[in-house]
Parts: sequence; structure tokens; C-alpha cells
Amino acid sequence: MKKLNVVVWNEYRHEKKREHIRAIYPDGLHGLIKSFLDVNEDMEVSLAALDDPDQGLPDERLEKIDVLIWWGHMAHGEVNDELVAKIQKRVYEGKMGFVALHSAHHSKPFRAIVGTNGNLSWGRNQKEIMWTLMPSHEIAAGIPDHFLIDEEELYSEPFYIPQPDALVFGGWFEDGHIMRAGACFHRGAGRLFYFQPGHEECRALYNPYVQRIITNAVRWAKPVEFGYEIPEGAPKVHHKIIDEFQQ
Amino acid sequence: MKKLNVVVWNEYRHEKKREHIRAIYPDGLHGLIKSFLDVNEDMEVSLAALDDPDQGLPDERLEKIDVLIWWGHMAHGEVNDELVAKIQKRVYEGKMGFVALHSAHHSKPFRAIVGTNGNLSWGRNQKEIMWTLMPSHEIAAGIPDHFLIDEEELYSEPFYIPQPDALVFGGWFEDGHIMRAGACFHRGAGRLFYFQPGHEECRALYNPYVQRIITNAVRWAKPVEFGYEIPEGAPKVHHKIIDEFQQ
Amino acid sequence: MKKLNVVVWNEYRHEKKREHIRAIYPDGLHGLIKSFLDVNEDMEVSLAALDDPDQGLPDERLEKIDVLIWWGHMAHGEVNDELVAKIQKRVYEGKMGFVALHSAHHSKPFRAIVGTNGNLSWGRNQKEIMWTLMPSHEIAAGIPDHFLIDEEELYSEPFYIPQPDALVFGGWFEDGHIMRAGACFHRGAGRLFYFQPGHEECRALYNPYVQRIITNAVRWAKPVEFGYEIPEGAPKVHHKIIDEFQQ
Amino acid sequence: MKKLNVVVWNEYRHEKKREHIRAIYPDGLHGLIKSFLDVNEDMEVSLAALDDPDQGLPDERLEKIDVLIWWGHMAHGEVNDELVAKIQKRVYEGKMGFVALHSAHHSKPFRAIVGTNGNLSWGRNQKEIMWTLMPSHEIAAGIPDHFLIDEEELYSEPFYIPQPDALVFGGWFEDGHIMRAGACFHRGAGRLFYFQPGHEECRALYNPYVQRIITNAVRWAKPVEFGYEIPEGAPKVHHKIIDEFQQ
Repeated sequence: MKKLNVVVWNEYRHEKKREHIRAIYPDGLHGLIKSFLDVNEDMEVSLAALDDPDQGLPDERLEKIDVLIWWGHMAHGEVNDELVAKIQKRVYEGKMGFVALHSAHHSKPFRAIVGTNGNLSWGRNQKEIMWTLMPSHEIAAGIPDHFLIDEEELYSEPFYIPQPDALVFGGWFEDGHIMRAGACFHRGAGRLFYFQPGHEECRALYNPYVQRIITNAVRWAKPVEFGYEIPEGAPKVHHKIIDEFQQ
Repeated sequence: MKKLNVVVWNEYRHEKKREHIRAIYPDGLHGLIKSFLDVNEDMEVSLAALDDPDQGLPDERLEKIDVLIWWGHMAHGEVNDELVAKIQKRVYEGKMGFVALHSAHHSKPFRAIVGTNGNLSWGRNQKEIMWTLMPSHEIAAGIPDHFLIDEEELYSEPFYIPQPDALVFGGWFEDGHIMRAGACFHRGAGRLFYFQPGHEECRALYNPYVQRIITNAVRWAKPVEFGYEIPEGAPKVHHKIIDEFQQ
Repeated sequence: MKKLNVVVWNEYRHEKKREHIRAIYPDGLHGLIKSFLDVNEDMEVSLAALDDPDQGLPDERLEKIDVLIWWGHMAHGEVNDELVAKIQKRVYEGKMGFVALHSAHHSKPFRAIVGTNGNLSWGRNQKEIMWTLMPSHEIAAGIPDHFLIDEEELYSEPFYIPQPDALVFGGWFEDGHIMRAGACFHRGAGRLFYFQPGHEECRALYNPYVQRIITNAVRWAKPVEFGYEIPEGAPKVHHKIIDEFQQ
Repeated sequence: MKKLNVVVWNEYRHEKKREHIRAIYPDGLHGLIKSFLDVNEDMEVSLAALDDPDQGLPDERLEKIDVLIWWGHMAHGEVNDELVAKIQKRVYEGKMGFVALHSAHHSKPFRAIVGTNGNLSWGRNQKEIMWTLMPSHEIAAGIPDHFLIDEEELYSEPFYIPQPDALVFGGWFEDGHIMRAGACFHRGAGRLFYFQPGHEECRALYNPYVQRIITNAVRWAKPVEFGYEIPEGAPKVHHKIIDEFQQ
């Protein structure tokens, strides 16, 4: 069995600059994500960071990725526009899935792939309760009807995303807010999943249900087996399709 | 201008049996709904109730309705199956829109039209905050990003509805729940809107934003101007459509 | 590995009554479908027919089915309403997926599960070209951008279905028609796929791409692993969910 | 009544360079579109072109537009990226609707707003039959179940758009192709409609049904009345929303 090539991309600045964040994620948020994905025999997981050469994603690496997980926050603006265009292209051509976590709602790739400004409201860390809205979706496999997250940054509606192809989870926040928290988007020949938990100051990524959801999402977002070559442009048709009946 | 023929159908049992409910809705829930719709010059609003002859909807009346608003709760089972089939047929043929309020989630017409068992969880009356998820939708016209409902019966996810064509509102409940609270469904050639507030023991229907949403929903659900006759069955095609080019 | 329990239900009248149809499907349409599904090691496939005892689906059998494939045409009205209610319930509770083929668009279970009258237009047998609209969907796995069906009964828009959760295939017909030919619906906690080819007078079910699509659809429609018990009714909540944080 | 400020933007190169195209659209494609929109008393229609100063859309003009209709083809690459960003922003903030015609499927604003590479297949001019898929949609108002277009450029699936919020029309092409031809997208707080007919060498824009659809689309795409200020960024929440109950 060929393993899924999964890369966890992290801005990886907070963890280096702030001790209390490093205390929570000593190997980086991406390191923690890798650690719980590594138990899956169908995945080969590696790390990438903004300050790596080529922002962690040189062409020869990007071209092998099956699913790219993205976490960014304070340095969205530093991400190279050409890299963003390559990521978007790769997703649209169905070569790679994309999983956007938490503050990646404002990242360049998320906004470009989905078609959104990514705007929402946000506030203090607080209790969240995650609700399953679509138990028939494979990303909800093994997840109870609701589960608790002791502390997570407030993210609130209105969230200016397009209506998702599947709205799998919704979040309740202590102060009176709700959030479309887990949402699937088909774009081009590829797929993207957005999941709201994962603030750098909180421990949501240690939650086993959050880990299961991200694991499910990787498998959901992976490219399907295409029965034809997805075009890079807009091909011209040179014969009458109906003439194929006579062949 | 031809006015919209709007009928507010109410089970109308609670208000007659229980004094504290009658105190809130002395003219019935349907009477209150009629009162705030009556200010609209484009609507002609009338009332119907389960205990009326023909359950309030004899054929000659049903055939004139543009939008049917439905409130039922304790007596869903008493609603005549033949009447339900007629309502479903009329919506599918695009002759009538349907607005289902609150406990109508379990009503026969709602379940038959939408394709759902209507199941959800429910509990004690409590504070609700209604959030606008889709400000670009006409049913959200004039509605703020959120508004308060002092008391409403808890209705909670998982709500076993199909993914709506437009998910316009979401509800936050004090005890930790969320709810897809305002949802549009296109069915056949017709339309249906479900809206969660409207418990008989509470005063949500007095809330001006709730009233505006129901008003917007009536206008949204009304039949469109069809450019052809919507069939009652499955018509056979007797000529080659492409031959029309030669005519 | 536990195999998927797949039952192919067929009205099975045409094949017995008309010789030219029996010539195409000597073991019935369901027999042919079973034959190409049987090659899959993850499926245990069996047959059921309208004229079997209990219309082929006694309770103790129905309760074990993972995916029910349905073909019916001339005898929709004979299908027992109680059986239809059981099928609908089982799909809504996520215990069974449903695959509706061809003239099952007018079958009782399809209409009840999806929420539609199932109306469309139809006509003479002719050439069809099937187009892939959503290559990122797993039901399109291995299917080219288009393929030919030498002869199939005309089924045409307007098809009065709700907008599907995923519209995977579209059909082109020689005489000038199109058809939303492959459509996914999530309903309750379950799934349904409708696929248009499969007329009893034609050989579309022998087409390897049609066979692959039905195979893919069985795997897509199968129940997911639920992380909680899907309720049969509407459960009352007896505690404050937020109090679970203190436990 | 305040009129809708509608601007028809046209690349306007073909008509100037090629005589046979100028013969069809002597006042430009945009001039023809303006002529049939002008009969509507609720619209104030004006023209803009790529070679106008500021590409026809200086800030002070753009800021007043309610609905922008876009036709472009051979010079997509010349459209200013900053202008595209302004158009996208204005749509996402719900200040302006966008109607993309024909070859605008590959235009920068369409791709950026929707989230697509806009790829499709294309070919020779030929007969098209337009089918209504969603008669319950207001853009289908007054349109028959199908109508003929004598000649139009082939545009074919797979069309790499996200699944639309409403798929209103589908096109059948003589040579064996289909196309999702009329599709609605809600994006941010705004709306976009794509419509496939409108090739510069053909006369589809003279078709009264095509004209009606574009007219309907302008009214559908116009901004709704918002009940709150749509944010330009991601606002921080400085109080507990639940505390509003005590005010």
C-alpha cells in the first residue's frame, strides 16, 4: 500500500517566541499534529515551516504531497504569493487535498482556494462545545453527538465563507456565540476541509476527538483515483463527441 | 397588485386548554402571527385550525393559498394523511410555499415535503441567541448579526434534516446547545422555510426580528412566475426536441 | 473484514413477462447487477424480488442490510407502504444506504427518502453520453470525463428532485435532452445515490463504467461508523450540557 | 424608488477588430445588453470597457455600482489585479452583485470571487438547447422548460466550478456535450451568477429568454438590505454577548 504523503505546515513563530506557548507545544503545533497522525499506517507525515528554505515547500516536495495541513496566524502576509498560486493550482487539479486549521481561515491559500475573505469575529479564550451536525459524513466517523473543549479562542459567526458542500460540525461558545466549525469544500477536482479548533494558547489539539477529526479529514481530503487526466487549462474539443459512437 | 394569499394554520389546542398559554396568545399563536403580517399591504392573511371543518383546509381553500404557515405540536398524528398528501403535492408543483415554525419540525407536512424524520433533541425553556449565518439571503434582510430571545424552548442538534439549500440562521442556547434555526429548502418546483423559534410557552413571536424573519420568509416562499406548466406526473416526450430547430 | 451486506431488489416482472427483455437479462436485472458486484471481496450480495414472500424483505433480513439497491418500474404501487416506511426509517437512522436505479425515480422508497415526487420527462430509447461533473467525488473514481451508452431510455429534465448534496454525473441524450444522472443525497444519518441508466430494454448495465459507478456507489452509501447512538425519536435533554465541564 | 446602478463591462476588442463581429454587435456586446436592460424602470444602466481610463471602473464609479455585468475573453490578463481585488472585496462585502457572461468563466474577477480556475472544454459553434433545472428559482421566472439557441460556442463539462448554491440551467450541445450553464454562487455577503451563452460570433444575446435570464439575474444579484454593517476585516469581540441580556 502506498502511504499518503502528508505534510503539516506551520507558521511556527509563536512557539519560538513565547515561552507559555512553547510549553504547550514544545515541538510546535505541527509536531503535535504529526505525533498523533504518525500512528496511522496509511500515512507518511512530515513537517514544514514558514522559516524553512522555500517556506518549507520547494517544488519537488510540493509535487509529492497528497494532503497539506496548514496552520498560520501572525505571518499570513509573509507567505509567498507564487507558492500560494502553486498550492491553489495543485488542489484545483485534484493532486492534493488541503486541511486548514483554526487561524488558517485568514491564510492566503484558504482564501484563494475557497473563494472567501475569511472574515469572522473572535475574542477571548473560553469553553467550547463541538456539535456533530452531519453524522453521515465520514469526517464525523467515531465522533459523539457533542464533545467538550475546555478552552479555545472564540471564533464566531458571521463567518464569511461560501455555503460548504458539507457542514459537519458546529461550535457553541460560552459567551454566546456559534461557529460553523467543520466544513468541507470541493474545489476544482480537489477537496479542502476547514476545522476551527487549534489556538496556540490552548490544548484543543490534544483532545482525542479533535485528533480523530483531523485524521478523518486527511483521509477524506486525499485525491481520488481519476479516470482521466484533469486538464491544466481549457482544452479545445477537435471532434464531435457523438462521432465516437461510430468508432 | 394581487395580494399573497397567506394562511396561518395552527393546531390551536394548547391555547384553549392551558390558561398560561392563552394568556400569552389570547387569539392563538396564529392570531398573533396574522396580526404582524397584516401590516403588509402585499398580503391577505387568514387563519385555519385543526379543529375547523376539513381541518381548516378544504380543497377550495387550499387551492387558493400562496403561502401556508404551519404550527403544530401535540396533535401531529391527527392531521389527515390525505390533506398532507395534497399539501405536499401543491408545494412540489410550485403552487404554494410552506413555512414551518418551531415544533412543526415533527409535523407530517414538514417531514413529507423535506424528506426527514424531523428528529432533534429538546429541553427546558432558556435564553437563545440567534445568529445570522448568511447575510446575503433575502430572509436575513434587516436582521442584525445576532439578536436575543429571552426565553425559548431548547431545540438542539443533531437535527436530522437534509443539508438545506440555504442555512440562514443558527441558534445558541444557554445550556450549551446549537441549532440550525433558519433553513431554506427547494422541493420540486416549490419552497419551504423552517424557523425554530415559536414555543407556545414563550414570547419569541413577539420579537420584532422574529416577526421580520417570518415576514421575509413568506415573500421568499411564494411561488415564482413559471414559464411553463409544471407537470403533475411524468410526461412522455413525443417528438425529438432537436427537430424544433427546423420549425 | 466484515463484508458489506448488499441486497439487490428487483421488481422482476418485465424479465418474466417479455421474452426480449429476458433475452437481455436472463437472470433478471438484479442477477446481472449481483454478477458484477460479486467480484468485490468486501461485498456479500444477494437478491430480492417483489413477488418473494414479504416482498423479499422480511424484517429479519432488512435489519442486516448495509446497502439496498432498488430497481422498480411498472409495479411501484404494489410495494407495501409499511415496508417503505421501514426502509425510509432504516436509511434515516443511518443503518443502511440506498441506491436507486433508473425507473426507481418514481419508486415509493426513493420519493419518501429524498422528498420528491420523482417527476421527469421520458421518451424513446436512444444514444446517451454520460459526463462526469464532479471528478473529486469518490463515486467518479476511475470514470473518464465522458463515456458512451449506445442505447438508453430517454430521461429528461426538468427532474423534480431537490438539489443534491453532490451532482456527480450528467447525461446528454441524442434527441436534445439533458439529465442530472448521478446524484448523492444525505438524508437523516444515511445516504442515497440515484443513477439514471438501467432501462430493462437496453444493455447499459453491461457497460463497465456503469458497473464501476454502481460499485463505487455501494461503497459510498454504506453506513459510517457512528460515535453515538442515532436516536429513533426526539430525545429530551435532562441536564445542562455545560455542566459536563465540571464532571 | 432608487434605481439599481447596473454597469455592463465589456472587454470590447473583438467588436472593434473584426468586422463580422461588429456586424452582429455594432454597439458592442455591452451596448446590446444595455439596450434590453434599459426597458426596466428599476435599472439605470451604463457601459464600461477595458480601454476606458482606469479600465472603465475608477474608484468613484465602482463604489456606486449595485450590479456589475462582466464580459471578457481575449484580454483577461490585461485586467488590473488591483481592480480585481477591489471588485472581489466589494462583492464579498455585499455592496455589489456580479453577473459573469460566457467567456468570463476565465476572467480574473470570476475566478477570484468564486474560487475556481474556471477551466472547461470548448469547441465549434453549434446548436444549443437550454434546459431549466430549477423552476423554483427567481432567475428562471418566465422561462420555459427548454428553449433553443440556434448557434453558440461549445462550452462543455467538466467545468471546474464549485457546486453552485443553485444550479438553475443546463445546456445541451449538438455534438454531444452538456454544460452547467446557469449557476448561482453566494460569496461573502454578496452574490454572483454565471451564465454560459454570449459568444461574440453568435446572436444568443438577442434571444428573448437569454435577455430575460440576464434581467432576472441582475435583480437576483443586487445587494440585500443588511441589518448590520458587514465588516471589512475580522472584528474583535470585546464583551460577552450573553451580558446583553442584562442590559
